[in-house]
Amino acid sequence: MKSVLFKHRSIRKFRPAPIPEELLRECLEAASRASTCGNMQLYSLIVTRDKALRERLAPCHFNQSMVTEAPCVVTICADVHRFTMWCEQRGADPAYDNFGWFMNGVTDALLAAQNLCVEAEMHGLGICYLGTTIYTAGEISKILSLPKGVIPVTTVVMGYPDETPELTDRLPLEAVVHYEKYTDYTEAEIDELWAEREESPLTRQLLEENGLPNLAQVFTQRRYVRRDNLAFSQSYFALLKEKGFFNNN
Amino acid sequence: MKSVLFKHRSIRKFRPAPIPEELLRECLEAASRASTCGNMQLYSLIVTRDKALRERLAPCHFNQSMVTEAPCVVTICADVHRFTMWCEQRGADPAYDNFGWFMNGVTDALLAAQNLCVEAEMHGLGICYLGTTIYTAGEISKILSLPKGVIPVTTVVMGYPDETPELTDRLPLEAVVHYEKYTDYTEAEIDELWAEREESPLTRQLLEENGLPNLAQVFTQRRYVRRDNLAFSQSYFALLKEKGFFNNN
Repeated sequence: MKSVLFKHRSIRKFRPAPIPEELLRECLEAASRASTCGNMQLYSLIVTRDKALRERLAPCHFNQSMVTEAPCVVTICADVHRFTMWCEQRGADPAYDNFGWFMNGVTDALLAAQNLCVEAEMHGLGICYLGTTIYTAGEISKILSLPKGVIPVTTVVMGYPDETPELTDRLPLEAVVHYEKYTDYTEAEIDELWAEREESPLTRQLLEENGLPNLAQVFTQRRYVRRDNLAFSQSYFALLKEKGFFNNN
Repeated sequence: MKSVLFKHRSIRKFRPAPIPEELLRECLEAASRASTCGNMQLYSLIVTRDKALRERLAPCHFNQSMVTEAPCVVTICADVHRFTMWCEQRGADPAYDNFGWFMNGVTDALLAAQNLCVEAEMHGLGICYLGTTIYTAGEISKILSLPKGVIPVTTVVMGYPDETPELTDRLPLEAVVHYEKYTDYTEAEIDELWAEREESPLTRQLLEENGLPNLAQVFTQRRYVRRDNLAFSQSYFALLKEKGFFNNN
């Protein structure tokens, strides 16, 4: 009997029913049990249920319908601000305004995020991660009033599912696991690892719809285009500086 | 009945027994079920069981005994290399050599890492995250032969526990959760949120051992000192450039 982790699928259609208060709290508590750097808990979880606020967040997530339809939007942030305040109030010398501590905060935030999602799914809730968070983190920061030392890392929408999608495919496990050291791929291995996905009916359909010769080009010419990648990258790095995570590098 | 997530504690003493092959595979498969950016799986898991290699990794983790005593060390890496190879072999134009895609890879890697750990704990294994990974990522990269486009994000040691530590404390949930927007802390709130921890017998013992007036100073003057923070931060950022994650910023 496989665990709940094997049943995960991203949910994009939600029933309007709110998440019961106690269940939400249980999920947030599960998040807080994840390991963090030196038990410093360098993250914050912003739970947005107010409809008007979710409508303001929606354009930051390219108006994906889940943001207004799911009853609960959790913006997951790296946060060195709270710990810095505590240190300053105790006459201690904090030095968290640098890239390394951004990474510590990001790590803490994402492990907590995954715990939040796993606990939610154990209780029949559905979730979806919104990668758009990185692209528009500056605007999200304004809407959610994030101070210096706090930066959005990802977002999770949560609620009761109104769809039961199929499991999505994965590359063969051999694609992502290396034993002992990293073994670089040969061209033939790359071909082999992607073969099943490239030959699937879904891929054939995508190629027809997009008028493109292969799946890789769907990624590079439609989904994640060079110009957008660079613009988002630059704006997120600029925000990192603005939020004080690159003062001493 | 609370879920397995509420029973997590970091394990630092392990029995020498190896992890059965099938169980390890199940844990790695659970990791691969986590959500990733566009289902691109921008991570690699390097599973190191060879004793000699673990001994070479040990100094990178400040010779913490778990690295040689736990039967299995998993170095979790952001990886845009594999996907880039695939794109290049298909005449597609990859643009993943930038900070934004470093972040996408880090996110994919850490969600997979937490799934790995949750599944392991469901089966009675113990785990510990090694934050030292960030500090010595350059040396780890050399030992594990990581190519450009691959960078260590964290490390997990795994095995059968040889200790049953108490749950560690957490700040009150109110410390890390904000409703609707971020509500900044008052000085009094910071005092209150840390009060229980500051008054604990463990803290009293730490202050005595370290000859320091408060717990915050144990963090800033003993555990995470300014000079070290900056050195680690700079070396990780330099590696990020070296590994080709900052070509176009």
